[in-house]
This record gives sequence, structure tokens and C-alpha cells, in this order.
Amino acid sequence: MLLIISGPSGSGKGTVTKRLHPGEGYALSISMTTREKRPGEIHGVDYVFCTKDEFREVRDADGLLEHATFSGNYYGTPASYVNQQIRQGYTVVLEIDVVGALQVKAKRPDAVLIFLMPPTFSELRHRLETRGTEDEDEIDRRFRRATDEVAELPKYDYLVINDDIDNAVRDINLIVTAEKLKPGRSDEKISHFHDNYNGA
Amino acid sequence: MLLIISGPSGSGKGTVTKRLHPGEGYALSISMTTREKRPGEIHGVDYVFCTKDEFREVRDADGLLEHATFSGNYYGTPASYVNQQIRQGYTVVLEIDVVGALQVKAKRPDAVLIFLMPPTFSELRHRLETRGTEDEDEIDRRFRRATDEVAELPKYDYLVINDDIDNAVRDINLIVTAEKLKPGRSDEKISHFHDNYNGA
Repeated sequence: MLLIISGPSGSGKGTVTKRLHPGEGYALSISMTTREKRPGEIHGVDYVFCTKDEFREVRDADGLLEHATFSGNYYGTPASYVNQQIRQGYTVVLEIDVVGALQVKAKRPDAVLIFLMPPTFSELRHRLETRGTEDEDEIDRRFRRATDEVAELPKYDYLVINDDIDNAVRDINLIVTAEKLKPGRSDEKISHFHDNYNGA
Repeated sequence: MLLIISGPSGSGKGTVTKRLHPGEGYALSISMTTREKRPGEIHGVDYVFCTKDEFREVRDADGLLEHATFSGNYYGTPASYVNQQIRQGYTVVLEIDVVGALQVKAKRPDAVLIFLMPPTFSELRHRLETRGTEDEDEIDRRFRRATDEVAELPKYDYLVINDDIDNAVRDINLIVTAEKLKPGRSDEKISHFHDNYNGA
């Protein structure tokens, strides 16, 4: 299953995603990027680092679930890694902004889209301000964008209110468990119906 | 929310439904029927007992979510009671066969359809035989019908395997909790986003 954790800047996507562990069946998607590797980052773990030519080659072969440009650098989600992890039985987690999430959903309608949001816009503003990673102009811009992003909520499968990180993680685990009960994800159970034991 | 517990005869629909209690937010739907009241049954609790004319009047006014005839008696699900309980905040539970469930889904696309099934057909056969309420011909008929009913699985929202009653009830509770996280059922949370606290 492909699980997309999305929502406005400041909604807590990153923090929540870090709590979805491999031991519970989750695998994090790894992005491709053309930006410089920073000290401490590991190729193939934090990102797949590549040249612009390499990036374009994958993109033009329809090998990306979504892609975007930030500050002149390309970022994208390679479908190959996602597919490989899904085949191994993992729930692949993609933490991504709203534009990217909707790009992925268009290519993969079976992806489960979760919109993460603090209980109120004022709380969102508060979180953007207190994390101190953006200046006032950037905070304003991200906050205004959040209104447009919330307008996309009807395109999402689920809304999880991130008032408390433990509650949000519990809701996400619960959604994944329920999604696995959909007939489209139950082929193994259904094939088991026709065991020939007892001549049934 | 309208929750439909459905599946073949012998799947354990009745047993599972009895475990969905009002204290946990569930209300059982009450059927209308033209059959005779049996000793111990209470009008308005077990069934709404009525004449054929009364039944036809409700049916012709499009007041039934589904209806069927068994042994010359009419049975149906009045929409009015279901709607009233939903307005009061209950998850209304309808325990019904596959034909009826699909009738309701056609009228109420927002209904959540759960298909209940033992792990295998041979286990289904075993349960039909050991409950001893049908003769061999009727067991055969119900068992053959189960194959057609399972073919309708793709029209359902969820498949719950009833290998163990506690597990099946747990899965159903989990589905209801996840369904409440869908944006279409989250109007109250969404309206709360725009509190004007802090001028946000």
C-alpha cells in the first residue's frame, strides 16, 4: 500500500512520519534530488543524489510519481523504489506537500491520502512562528497557502487532526489497518476461501 | 453513519451485530414486517409489525431503504427510523443479506458495507450444518447461494473474516473509527479550523 502523509507547512507531517517505523510494516519513500549532498546525508538513505541529466532521464521515462523544482533544484519520487517496497509487503510512506500528493493520487488512484492539520488555523500559525525556521515573510506565504491547501481536503481520503502526536500516529495506524480490510487489498484472504478441504 | 453488516447465511452476521452496543454509539435498525408477531416479540423493538396495506403505503412513498418477500410476508427497512438515529449521532447498524445490502447501497452511497465471511467455504458449510436450523436441502441451497454472494464482494467497502467473533467485532469497530476520519464525515472538525482566536 502507498500511504501519503500530506498537509500544510507546520502541520507536523515530518514529525508524524518519523514515528511510522519499519517494525510496524512501514517503509519511507526516498526522493531523488539534484541538490548538493549536505554533510551527514547518505546517498540512497536520505536522498538519491543525481545530476539534472539523470533526473530528466527518469522523469521523461515516466519513472516519477511526482516532481517539483525548489530553488532551482529538482526533487522527485521514483516509482521504482516505491513499487519494490510495496512488493515486499511494506506500507510505503510518502511525506509530501499538497500539490505533490495530488500528483501522486492522479497516477496512483489506489494510494491512501491523509491530510494532516492542527486543530485550528491559529494553531498552525503558532507552530510556524515558534519553530523559527522561516522568516516572517515566508511564514506569511506558507500560512496563506494553507487556506488553499485546506480547500483540497475533499480530494483526500482521510483527515487526521494533529492536536497530539500520539493521537495522530494512532489514527494513521488505524487507517492503515482498516484500509487492509478493503476487498481490493484482500486477494490472499479471498483465494483462501476456496480451499478444497472437506470437498467444499 | 449507516453501517451494513452483510454476508452469506452462516457467516455470523447476527452474532456479530448483537455485539455492537448502544454504549459504543451503535443503534440497530428496526425492520417492518407483515408477518405475525411471535410470543415474546415486542412491536417497535424486534420489528414494526404492520398490515400489507400499511407496508405498501410506506414502500410506495419511497420510505424503505430495501424490501423483500419471504414465505409470503413482506420485510423492509424504513428510512425514517434510520435517519432519525443518524441525526442523533448513532452509527445505525443494518444486518441484512447481500441482495438487500446492495439495494441499500444504491439508495445510500454513503453507507458503509461490510462483507462478513468465515475463513473458508468449508467452514461456512460446517457452520450451516452444525447450527441445525435448516434441513439438508435448505443448507445446500444457502451454500450454493454463498458462491454468488462472494462474487459481489467488489461492491463492498470492507471484507471482515469471521474466524473469531472478538476479532471480527474489533475489525468492525476499527472500520467505523477510520470511516469517521473521512473528510466527508468531518464537517465539525473542519468548521473548527476557522476559529478567530488570535485573529488567524
